[in-house]
Order: sequence, then structure tokens, then C-alpha cells
Amino acid sequence: MTTHYFEHPLNEKTRMYLRVESLLNQLHVSSQFTDELQHLLFFRSLFDLLEIFEQIQLKSELAKDIEKQRQTYRNWRNVEGVDQEMLDQILSEVDQAYSELMGAERFGQSFKEDRFLSMIRQRFNLPGGACCFDLPALHHWLHRPVERKIDDASQWMRSLEPLANALELWLKLTRETGQFRARQAQAGFFQSDADEANILRLKIPVEYGVYPMISGHKNRFAIKFMDFESGQASTQNIEFDLAVCG
Amino acid sequence: MTTHYFEHPLNEKTRMYLRVESLLNQLHVSSQFTDELQHLLFFRSLFDLLEIFEQIQLKSELAKDIEKQRQTYRNWRNVEGVDQEMLDQILSEVDQAYSELMGAERFGQSFKEDRFLSMIRQRFNLPGGACCFDLPALHHWLHRPVERKIDDASQWMRSLEPLANALELWLKLTRETGQFRARQAQAGFFQSDADEANILRLKIPVEYGVYPMISGHKNRFAIKFMDFESGQASTQNIEFDLAVCG
Repeated sequence: MTTHYFEHPLNEKTRMYLRVESLLNQLHVSSQFTDELQHLLFFRSLFDLLEIFEQIQLKSELAKDIEKQRQTYRNWRNVEGVDQEMLDQILSEVDQAYSELMGAERFGQSFKEDRFLSMIRQRFNLPGGACCFDLPALHHWLHRPVERKIDDASQWMRSLEPLANALELWLKLTRETGQFRARQAQAGFFQSDADEANILRLKIPVEYGVYPMISGHKNRFAIKFMDFESGQASTQNIEFDLAVCG
Repeated sequence: MTTHYFEHPLNEKTRMYLRVESLLNQLHVSSQFTDELQHLLFFRSLFDLLEIFEQIQLKSELAKDIEKQRQTYRNWRNVEGVDQEMLDQILSEVDQAYSELMGAERFGQSFKEDRFLSMIRQRFNLPGGACCFDLPALHHWLHRPVERKIDDASQWMRSLEPLANALELWLKLTRETGQFRARQAQAGFFQSDADEANILRLKIPVEYGVYPMISGHKNRFAIKFMDFESGQASTQNIEFDLAVCG
């Protein structure tokens, strides 16, 4: 049975984390410049990240959350039935991610200090603004051999590694807190309580032809399933899998 | 000798034409969905086009310009030394592009009437806003088999064909009016008169390490060559090729 996978953040901070995760992934994939247009995606993702860094204090938010996770795992030390070796392993990963994060520059600082990136950022968001006459310096750069472009990209991305590692770890540990359970939406609707949850994960069988519209917060949420073809709320009873992750 | 190719529009209308040409090319390339991220470029290009259609009366501008070109070519009828067969061929292409253009819908009309496109357009420009929780309908669509996505894309793009054909022809005929000639920029600077020109085309040998900053209008223009590494105006004498196209 083929299923569609969806995730939904239950608070604004996690919403940002998931967006940043997705942008970092785009950056990573497009940094190989395997076709003539990937640079568009690369720079767009980079500038989108920069915009998010300007909007929120990502570094301190993430540091607080990693610290909270560390406390949770420390409380499981010497608890009977908990695999202490695995716990030590996780704690050492968390310690490392935390100290790298604290040692990192203010996110985006080195992009802002880069003359080339600052120059092209201004016009990049114009519709169609990546033409050679709008951004001649970018087009000069594009003529470089692909290895040099990849080198430049890895250098720009290096400053994001502490963020990428800490975020990846926090999201991995958070996703692991929830277990998928079979649920049924009655007439396309499902609601439930949650306990300080951050992320909902859903697996929806493809044959229903529906996607979820989710509202809620850390302690309560509702899922309305929409019919893709009609754009209307579905009235089917829908069996799906749900994991509520803290 | 490797050269870098640059183009520069000498008026606002041609600037828009070149941006639209570049967006149509992006749309075309990304409509194959050959990797997991091309859809981002596809929808971004589509929505950028839509934004341009909302800003300017592209259809009537282009119709006027095609009509002007038609008059020019008609004046060459029965002129001695002009290849009449080739002229007839061009005129028939122009006639066809013109009548297709006039018969076309208001550009972007069918995108605006498309429920799916309208829905995803709203959030697409948020930084990182193409996540599954921001655009669940898009993510449902992404799970379709690639052939269906390609089908959907060609259907959306079909309404742009009259625009694409007319624009391609106008730009081709415009670019053909100019011939590349060897020029020298003294101490990184070149200026010249033009006669109702629309586009400058430049070929710059790569070894100078420079890119052009161009200012001017249809009757006069100046080219300042910038050193890529230093970001400063170049002081080299630079041999390059230039075509001034009406």
C-alpha cells in the first residue's frame, strides 16, 4: 500500500525549524550545479535562509531546545531498563552539537560580509531578476568551471554546519519520541489531545486522494482531510497512521 | 579563446522581454521534473511570469512590436538585392506569430482560474514556504507519477505558447539586426552612439576576468568593465566584440 507522508509543526518555532531543514536540504542538493539552472535554487535557498535568520533568533532558540533535550536524556541516567550505552552515545552527540552551536558565528554573518553574495542578493528576488543584465557578476561567476563553483558553495555552506548538525539532531530525537499508531478519521475529520507535542507525522494511503489540513497547538489538534480533485472537505472515513512527537 | 556572452536591453520594454524569455526557458527546462527539487523552479518561474503579466500589458506591447517588425520587412519587398524568398518566409512567420498572439487569452488568465495554482501561489514566496505543512495540496500533487506531473505542466504551459512563439521570433529578428564587431575599451571604459537600438550583445574574452556594467538608452550607451575579483572598475584596455541590435 503506497502512503503519502506529511509532517505538521504544532508551534511557530518548530515551523521555522522544519522550513530551515527543508532549505538546508535544497541548498545541499543544488550545490552540485549539475544542470544549468540549479544555481537559481542554490542562491534562492541561501537568501531565504538569510531572511529567516534576520527574522528570528534561531541560534538561541535552538540552543535552548537542545539544552532541554539534554536535560531529558540526563534524567534517564541510571534508570532501570534504559540502555545506558545508547543513552551515553546520544548524550555525547547532544553535547557536541550544543558546543558547536555555541561556538558558531551569528547565523548568516559570513554571507552578509561576502561582497559577491551581498551584491547579488539585492536583485535576486525580482521576478526574472537573475538575467545577465540584472546580475552581471553572477553571470561571470556562472562561467567558472563547475569544480570552482562547488568549492565556492561548500565554503559558503561551511558556516551553516553547526546549525545543520544541531537542527538535524534535535529533529531526529524529536521525531523518534512518537510512534505511528493506526487512527481513523470519521467523515474526513480527526481530533485529539497532545501533550506538549512539537510535530505530527502522518502516513496517508494514497488511494483516498486526500491531503490533510491541520490546525492546533501543542496540547490539542484537529485534522481535516481535503479531497484533492474537488478541493472540498472529504466525507470519507479515512484510516491513517499518526505519530505525535514531543 | 573562450568568451563570456552578455546581453543588455536598452529600454524597459526589452528588459521585460528578456526576463520573460529567461523565465520561459526556466519553465521549459524544469517542467521535466527530473529531480526532487525542479518543481520549486517550475512553480517559481510560473508565478514570476504571472507577476510580470500583472505589472505590464505584455500582450499589447508585444503585438505593437511584432507589427512594427512586419512593416519593416514589408518595406523590403521588391527591393533589389534582398532575397525575396527568405523575406516571404520571415513575413509568413511574423504573420502567424501575430495572429496567434492576437487570438490568445489575456496572459496568465488560465493560471488565475486554476484552483490548484491559485492556492499554492499564496504561500510559495514565503522563505522556505514550500514545505508540506504550508502547501499540503502541492505535496499531494508531488506524489503523482512523473508522467502525470509532466502532463499537468504541459497543459499549464500551453496557454503561454502564443507568447513564447511571438517573443522568440521578435528577439531572434532583433538579435539578427546587429553584427558583432571588434571594439576596444580604453582603461576599462567604452561608449558609443546607437540608433534606436534595443539590445547590446557582448562577447568578452574570459582572461580579462571582467564583467560589464552598462548604462544608457536606445541612442547612447556606456560600458564600464568591472574586475570580478576586486569588485573595482577595471583599468585594463579590453578587446571585445559588440553587436548593437535594433
